Amino acid sequence: MTRNRQILLVARPRGEATADNFRLVETDMPALVAGQVLVRHHYLSLDPYMRGRMNAGESYAEPQALGEVMLGGTVGEIVASRSDRYRVGDRVVGMGGWQEYQIVDGDRAGALRRVDGTAIPLSAHLGAVGMPGVTAWYGLLQLIVPRSGETIVVSAASGAVGSVVGQLARLRGCRVVGIAGGPEKCRAVVEEFGFDACIDHRLHGDTRSLADALAAACPDGVDGHFENVGGRILDAVLRRCNPFARIAICGLIAGYDGQAIPLREAQLILLRRLKLQGFIVSEHLDFWPPALRELGGLVASGRLRHRESIVHGIENAPAAFIGLLHGQNFGKQLVRLI
Amino acid sequence: MTRNRQILLVARPRGEATADNFRLVETDMPALVAGQVLVRHHYLSLDPYMRGRMNAGESYAEPQALGEVMLGGTVGEIVASRSDRYRVGDRVVGMGGWQEYQIVDGDRAGALRRVDGTAIPLSAHLGAVGMPGVTAWYGLLQLIVPRSGETIVVSAASGAVGSVVGQLARLRGCRVVGIAGGPEKCRAVVEEFGFDACIDHRLHGDTRSLADALAAACPDGVDGHFENVGGRILDAVLRRCNPFARIAICGLIAGYDGQAIPLREAQLILLRRLKLQGFIVSEHLDFWPPALRELGGLVASGRLRHRESIVHGIENAPAAFIGLLHGQNFGKQLVRLI
Repeated sequence: MTRNRQILLVARPRGEATADNFRLVETDMPALVAGQVLVRHHYLSLDPYMRGRMNAGESYAEPQALGEVMLGGTVGEIVASRSDRYRVGDRVVGMGGWQEYQIVDGDRAGALRRVDGTAIPLSAHLGAVGMPGVTAWYGLLQLIVPRSGETIVVSAASGAVGSVVGQLARLRGCRVVGIAGGPEKCRAVVEEFGFDACIDHRLHGDTRSLADALAAACPDGVDGHFENVGGRILDAVLRRCNPFARIAICGLIAGYDGQAIPLREAQLILLRRLKLQGFIVSEHLDFWPPALRELGGLVASGRLRHRESIVHGIENAPAAFIGLLHGQNFGKQLVRLI
Repeated sequence: MTRNRQILLVARPRGEATADNFRLVETDMPALVAGQVLVRHHYLSLDPYMRGRMNAGESYAEPQALGEVMLGGTVGEIVASRSDRYRVGDRVVGMGGWQEYQIVDGDRAGALRRVDGTAIPLSAHLGAVGMPGVTAWYGLLQLIVPRSGETIVVSAASGAVGSVVGQLARLRGCRVVGIAGGPEKCRAVVEEFGFDACIDHRLHGDTRSLADALAAACPDGVDGHFENVGGRILDAVLRRCNPFARIAICGLIAGYDGQAIPLREAQLILLRRLKLQGFIVSEHLDFWPPALRELGGLVASGRLRHRESIVHGIENAPAAFIGLLHGQNFGKQLVRLI
C-alpha cells in the first residue's frame, strides 16, 4: 500500500504566514477504482497566490479549506492506471496539491494535462511553460501590448513570472527594466535574463528615491508595467509613466497579509491617461494553448531562460513557501518530491 | 470700433482658486485683415478641467499662460467676415476663451465648427451636444462599454457630463445610480434625468457609509463607473464593484487644488480584476462626429434632457467658476454674454 505525505492548512495566518499554519500528515492511499489514476508528483509549485487563498476574507477565489491539503500545481507521472485515457509512465501536469501522490478521475476534464518530457524539462511545466509563464504572456501581450521601442518595467523581475515578462518583451524589441531585491538578483536579471537594467529596490527606501532610479533607467519614460508587488513600487512606477501607459496588475505581494495597499497618487491615472487592469490567468483559458506553444518553443530552443529554487521533500514546503513570500527564493520556487 | 471685455488669468491659485486669480480688462478689437472673422460670443462654457490648467504643475495639457485670456469653449455668431468660409450670421462653436469677442483666422482647421441653430438650442453645443456630451459618450461607450442589465454608477451625476452618462446608459438598458451633492440635485437626477436612484454624498461622510448606501442602491453590485470626482467616492465605488467592472476616470475634482488623491484599496483592482482608465476627450477626435450625431439627435427629439446654470455677463465668470468647483452649479454652467 502506498503511503502518502501531505501538508494540510490547519490555521489561517494572523498577519504573516507561519509554519504553525501547516501540518504534515501521513496517510495510506486507497486502492484505485475504475476510471482512476494514481499520480506520483515529481515537483510541487509554490506560488505567491497561495498566500491569498490562506485568508478567509475576500480574494478572487474560494479560500483554501482548513484541514485539507494545501492547493498547488504539480507535475508528475502516472504510476497506476484504471483509466483508458492514461497509461503508466505518462507525464502529467495538474493541481495535485502539497502532497506526494494524488488519485485523479481520468475522465474529469481539465484535471490533468499530458506533457512531453523530452525537449522541455519536467519542472519547466510548473514555471516558464506553465502557469507563471502563461501569466507573463497574457499580462504582457494581451494587456500591456508592447510595441517595439517602448520601455517596459517589471517588478519581482527575477521571479518565475517577471523573468518571462522581461524576456518576452525583449524579444518584441522593447527596452526592459526590472525591479528586484538585492544585488545578486539584479545581476541575474541583467546577465541571465537579458534585461537592459535592473533596480535594487532595497537601495531605495522611499517612493521618491525609487522614482529617481527609474528615471535614470528609463530615459524615455515607462510605456508598460507588469506589477507583481504593489505599494511603493507601483507608486514610483506611476510617476514615471508616459501618457497612455498600460499597467497589468498580476500580483500585490505587498498586501497579502491583509493590509490595504494604497495607490498614493491616483490622479496620475487621469493626468497620464493610464490604463490599470487586474487579471487572473486562470480566467483566460482560451489563451493557454497559444501561450504554451510559444513558451514551449522558446524554452526548447534555449531562447527563454528560467531559473529554479528547489527544495527537496514535502516536509520542507512550508518553510520554502514562507521564504518565497519574503523574497528569499530566486526564480521559480519548486519542491522536489522524488 | 468694437470694445471687448476679457478675463485674464493673472495669478496661479495657492490651494483653492479665488477671484484674485483673475482680472477683467477692456480692449479695442483691431480691424479684421483678409481671411479673418469676428465672432461675437453668445455663451462661454465653464468646466472643471479649467482648474487644472490654472496650475503651473503637471496636467495633461500646457498650463494656461499668466496675463492671457482664460481658455474656454464658446458658441457665438459671426458678426464680421473677411473669410470666404464664413458669412455674417453663421453660428459657430470654438475655443474663444473668457471674452466677449474673438478674431479667428477662418482658414485655421478646427478653430471653428459651424452649427445649426434651429433644432438644437445654441447653448447645448457647449453641453449635451458639445464637449461634455462627447466626454460622457466616449467614456461610457468606448471605455465602460455597458451591457443591458448591468449597473452603472456616475459621480457628479447632475453635472453636464454625468447627467448625459446616466441617460445614455439608461437608453442602453442599464440600471443607473448617480452620486450628487444635496437633496435638490439628487431629486433632479432621478426625476429629470431618469436615473434609477441617486445617493447624496453629503449624507455619507466616510467611505464605509457611502459604500453601504451604494450597496443598497446597487443590489447586483457595480459593473461600470464613470468617475468625475475621485477620493472617497471612488474608494466607496470600488468596494461595490463586481468582478471585471470597468471604471472610466474622467475627472478628479477632489484633487484639482494640487493635493494627492489616494486610492486606498488598490488591491481591489486585482481581487476584482478591474480596469481603470483615464481619458481626455480631446485626444479622441475620431469619435466626435458619431458622438455628436447621436447626442444631437437625442436632444433634438427630446430624449436627452439637459439642465443649465446660467450667469449673465463676463464679469461674473470668475465667481461662477469658483462656484462650479464647489458644486454650486446645477447642470451645465454657462455664462451668457449677449
